[in-house]
Amino acid sequence: MRFSNTLIPTLRDDPARTDVASQRLLLRAGFLRQLNAGIFTWLPLGFRVLQKVEAIVREEMQRINAQEILMPFVQPAELWQESGRWEQMGAELLRIQDRHERDFCLSPTHEEIVTDLFRNNVRSYRELPCTYFHMHTKFRDEIRPRFGLMRAREFIMKDAYSFHLEESTLDKTYWDMYEAYSRILDRIGLDYRSVEADNGLIGGSSSHEFQVLAEAGEDVLAFSDSSDYAANIERAEARPPATRPEAQESMEKVHTPNAKTIESVADLLGLDATRCVKTLIVQGQESLVALILRGDHDLNELKAEKLPGIRTPFQFADPNDIENSLNCSIGSIGPVGLEIPYYVDRDAAALADFVCGANEDNYHYTGANWERDAHLQDIVDIRNVVEGDLEPNGTGRLLLKRGIEVGHIFKLGRKYSESMRVAIQDQEGATIAPAMGCYGFGVTRTVAAVIEQCHDEAGILWPESIAPAKVHLISVGADRSPEVGEAADKLYQLLQELNVEVLYDDRAERPGVKFADADLIGIPHRVVIGSRTLKEGVLEYRFQRNETEKISESELKNRVSASSIH
Amino acid sequence: MRFSNTLIPTLRDDPARTDVASQRLLLRAGFLRQLNAGIFTWLPLGFRVLQKVEAIVREEMQRINAQEILMPFVQPAELWQESGRWEQMGAELLRIQDRHERDFCLSPTHEEIVTDLFRNNVRSYRELPCTYFHMHTKFRDEIRPRFGLMRAREFIMKDAYSFHLEESTLDKTYWDMYEAYSRILDRIGLDYRSVEADNGLIGGSSSHEFQVLAEAGEDVLAFSDSSDYAANIERAEARPPATRPEAQESMEKVHTPNAKTIESVADLLGLDATRCVKTLIVQGQESLVALILRGDHDLNELKAEKLPGIRTPFQFADPNDIENSLNCSIGSIGPVGLEIPYYVDRDAAALADFVCGANEDNYHYTGANWERDAHLQDIVDIRNVVEGDLEPNGTGRLLLKRGIEVGHIFKLGRKYSESMRVAIQDQEGATIAPAMGCYGFGVTRTVAAVIEQCHDEAGILWPESIAPAKVHLISVGADRSPEVGEAADKLYQLLQELNVEVLYDDRAERPGVKFADADLIGIPHRVVIGSRTLKEGVLEYRFQRNETEKISESELKNRVSASSIH
Repeated sequence: MRFSNTLIPTLRDDPARTDVASQRLLLRAGFLRQLNAGIFTWLPLGFRVLQKVEAIVREEMQRINAQEILMPFVQPAELWQESGRWEQMGAELLRIQDRHERDFCLSPTHEEIVTDLFRNNVRSYRELPCTYFHMHTKFRDEIRPRFGLMRAREFIMKDAYSFHLEESTLDKTYWDMYEAYSRILDRIGLDYRSVEADNGLIGGSSSHEFQVLAEAGEDVLAFSDSSDYAANIERAEARPPATRPEAQESMEKVHTPNAKTIESVADLLGLDATRCVKTLIVQGQESLVALILRGDHDLNELKAEKLPGIRTPFQFADPNDIENSLNCSIGSIGPVGLEIPYYVDRDAAALADFVCGANEDNYHYTGANWERDAHLQDIVDIRNVVEGDLEPNGTGRLLLKRGIEVGHIFKLGRKYSESMRVAIQDQEGATIAPAMGCYGFGVTRTVAAVIEQCHDEAGILWPESIAPAKVHLISVGADRSPEVGEAADKLYQLLQELNVEVLYDDRAERPGVKFADADLIGIPHRVVIGSRTLKEGVLEYRFQRNETEKISESELKNRVSASSIH
Repeated sequence: MRFSNTLIPTLRDDPARTDVASQRLLLRAGFLRQLNAGIFTWLPLGFRVLQKVEAIVREEMQRINAQEILMPFVQPAELWQESGRWEQMGAELLRIQDRHERDFCLSPTHEEIVTDLFRNNVRSYRELPCTYFHMHTKFRDEIRPRFGLMRAREFIMKDAYSFHLEESTLDKTYWDMYEAYSRILDRIGLDYRSVEADNGLIGGSSSHEFQVLAEAGEDVLAFSDSSDYAANIERAEARPPATRPEAQESMEKVHTPNAKTIESVADLLGLDATRCVKTLIVQGQESLVALILRGDHDLNELKAEKLPGIRTPFQFADPNDIENSLNCSIGSIGPVGLEIPYYVDRDAAALADFVCGANEDNYHYTGANWERDAHLQDIVDIRNVVEGDLEPNGTGRLLLKRGIEVGHIFKLGRKYSESMRVAIQDQEGATIAPAMGCYGFGVTRTVAAVIEQCHDEAGILWPESIAPAKVHLISVGADRSPEVGEAADKLYQLLQELNVEVLYDDRAERPGVKFADADLIGIPHRVVIGSRTLKEGVLEYRFQRNETEKISESELKNRVSASSIH
C-alpha cells in the first residue's frame, strides 16, 4: 500500500467535538470519517483493522463449531410483535415502513430472526445443540450518539445464538463462548475483565460481560482485591452490613431552611452524610414509591427496577406529582409518617439515630430510629457498591475500574422459544421448547477499545494482531537522491514478496510530516530509508515507541517475522 | 464441515411460489431462506458461496488498485437533496425518519456519500485518479420483489467510484474495470456478454452492462452475427430503413367495427401488420404526445423518454384524457389530422400506402401516405430492435438473447461533482470539478446467475471457483459397518489436512437420501465410501454429473488438486 495513492487524510490538529481518544485519533490518523451523528465511513486503513478483528472473531467462532450465516438487516415487525419486544423496546429500535406501509425495523439484534429460522428449519433433537453466528451491520437509534465508535448508531457486531435440549449443553456452549471471547481478546492483546452482568431487556438468567479496561469506558466494574469476583456495578451486590445499633437519641424536628440536599443538611447539622438517609421518589405501578438510601450512597436503578411494584422502565417521579401527593418538596421527604410505600436499602436500614426529611418543607428530624419512629419492612439492596465495600462473599474489599463492554454472553433460557412457540422433538418424541443462549461481540467497538488502551500523546499504538499493516516504510529525501527512492522501492517490493503488509510512505513530503503521520497512524514496525543510512548500509528501525536502532535488512526480516507469532 | 451438525435443511419437494430455478434450488438445497418479500437469510452453505464470490471480486478490485472502504447503510437525506435524487428517485428509495424525525434513506447506492467523502478529504490533483470500493448491504424497495435473489429488496453489491482530473484517466479506469469484471466472470466460470447499456437515472455519458446469459434473465440483449456489436435492447439502435416508396394508393376511410388492435385491423383488412402504423399516446411536458410505430414493432420506452417534450418518468396517457382530448378511443387514433404533436419511428416513416386510425371510433384509413395525408417532421428511433434487424453499422444481422445483469459500469462525468460542488486544484492551481465513474457488481445476484446457468433436473452444478466445498464425502452404511465410518472419518481428516474443503455427509440417512441431497447441493467432487468399495480398496468417485469411477486415494488427491487451478 503506497501512501501516495491511498486515502489517508491525516489531520494536523484535533478535530472539533470529539469526546474520547479513540474517536479523535481515528479521525486524525485518517482511519474513519463521520457521515452523520453515530454513522461512520471506514477509510482504507480503518477497513483493514476491521477486517483483522473480524478474521480473529471468525476463527474463534469456527473453533467452537459455530456456523456462520447471514441474517437480514431490515426485519419485519411481525416477529418482534410475537416476542413482545416491538412494544417493549424504546426508540432505539428504529421502526420504519416500506412502500406498502408495512412495518419493519432496522436490526439492533437478531433473537427473533434466528428463533424464526430455527423453528422453520430444525425439527429433531439430533440437530441440537447448535450455534449460529453472523457478523453484520446493526442499527441502534441512540438518543445522543457519542464517544465515536463506542456509542454509534450504525455499527458492526458479531452475534451468535445457540439452541439446546438440556441446560447442560447450554452451559457447555456458554462456557465455550466465554473461552472464545477470552481468546479473541487475548489474541488482540487487550487488558480486559469478564464480569457478571445484568441481563436487561434481553431476558434470561445469567450473563457475563467482557470489559476492556479503559478510563473512557462507560461502565464501572467492581473487582475483589482477594478473589476472582468481578461484576458490573449495575449488578454487583452490596453485602449486608453489620446489625443495627440500639437507638440512643430521641427524635427532634429541626429547622433546616434552604437545605435541600444531603450535603447541605449534613453541613448545617455538623454531621457526616453517612448519618443521614435520603429519600428518592420514583414511579410505581400503582402509586409513587419511595426508595431510601444512606446519604452517601447512590441508587442503582437496575436493582430498583426489579423490585415488585416499580414501574418499568425505571423513572423518577415528576416534582409536581411529588408536591401534589406529599405536600412537600423533594429535599424534605423522609420515612417518618410517609404515606406512600417505601423500600429501604440495607445500609440505610442499619442506621440508628439518623437524620431524615420531616415531610414538611424546611424541616428535618434528627435522632430518628427505625421501628420506633418509622416502620421497617422492605429491606433491599438498591445501592451501587463503592470502593472499599466488602465483596459479596466477605473475603476481600472491592475496587472499582472503568471498562468498555465489547462482549456480552447470555443464557436466555426459553424466553424466545416459548413466546415464539418453538417446538422440537426430544429423544422420547415429546415436543419441548429449546433453551437458548445469545452472544454478542462488538466488532467496531473493539477497534475503539483497542485505541483507548493503546495510544499515547503522539498517536495510536496498534497491537500487531490488528494493525493496518506490519511495517511503515518511510523514504526520506527521495526527491533529492534518486537512490533513496530506488532502495525504498526495492525494500517495499521485497517485503511484499515476503507477504509482509507494508504502508510505504513514498510521498514528496518533509520528513517531519512523514514521521508525525507515522506516529499518528501507529503501525508497529517503522523503517526509514535516507541517504545517510543508505551509505552506511543499514536501515533505521524502530518498534512502536522504542529507541531507534540501526539494523541490517536480514535483521529486519527477523524482527518482522518473529513478531508475527501470537 | 459435517452434514450432521450444519444447518442444511434440504427439501424433498419444490417450495411454493418460486419463479426461477435459482430461487427454487437455493431453497431446496438449503442454502437460503426467505424472511420477507425480497429479504433473505443465507444459511451456512449459501454463506460460503457468498464469501467466495466476494473474495474473487475483492482480489480483482485490488489488482486494479481500487481502495476498499466501508460506507454507511443509513444515509442522511441532505446529500441526496444536494444531488437532486431525493426528489428524482421513486419509491425504491426507502425514505425513513430517525427518532428525531430527521430524514434518512436506506442505501441503494453510494454516489452521494462517496462524493461527499471525496470533497471533504481530497484537496490536490496529486491524489487523482483514485478508485474506492466497498461491498455492503443495499436496499431497494421493489414494488414486486421477485425471481429470488435476482430482484431482491435487501442484497449485497460491490460498488466502486473513481475520480479524475482528465477524461483520459477516467477512460483508463473505465476499461480497467471492464477488464476486472471480465476476469471476475471468467474466474467464476460464467458465459456472459458485455453490452452497451443505457445510463438511466444515474446519469453520465456511457456505460456497459455485464450480462450472464440465461433464459430466466430479465434483460434482452442484441448481438451481431458478424461483429462484436452487443447492446441491451433498451439501447440497441434500430438502423434506418431503406427510403420510402412512392405513394400508389389513394386514401380511403373504411369501417372497422370493434377492431381496436393492430392484429384485428390487419385481419379485418387482410393485410400484414407491417402495412399498418400504430399510434400510442403518452404524457408530454405540455400536452399529450403521440408516438407512431410500424404495426409489428414495440415501443422502446427508454428511447422515447429521452425525446424533447416527453415527460420523465415515461408514462402512457390515461384513456379518459385521450377520449377527452381527441374525441375517440385509443384503437382508432392515427396521424391524419391528428391535433397533438407526434413523433414517427424511422420504420413507420418509411411506409407508403399504410393503414392508420381515422381519429374516429370504428374507422381506419387505408392507402394513407406521409406528407400527402399527414405531415412528417420528427422522425426518430423509438422501437425495440427485433431478431434479424441489421446491426447499426449495417454489416450483420441482430440476434436476441436473454441475460441477467450482474455488473454495470458507468462514466458519470461531472453530474455529481458539479451538483455537489466538488472542487479540486489541478496542476496550475485552478479549481475544477473532477470527472467520475461508478461501477456496480451484484454479489448476491451473481450467485443466482451462476445457478441459472449451472443446474440440471437434479440440482445445482457449482463451478469449483465458488462451490461451498470442493468435495462431498458420503459414507454409506456406516451404522451397519463401523469400518466404513472409520474410513470416512479418516478421509475427512486427511482432506482437511490437505486444506481441501469437504462437506462430509456423516448422517444416519438412507443412501438414496444422501445421494439426492448431494445432487441437489451440487458440490463438484463426490466421493462415496461403502463397505464393498472399502473391501476393494478403492473410492467411488464422480465429478459433477460424469460417470462414476473407482479410483485410489492418491488419484483422488490428484483430481482434487488438479482442478483447483483457475
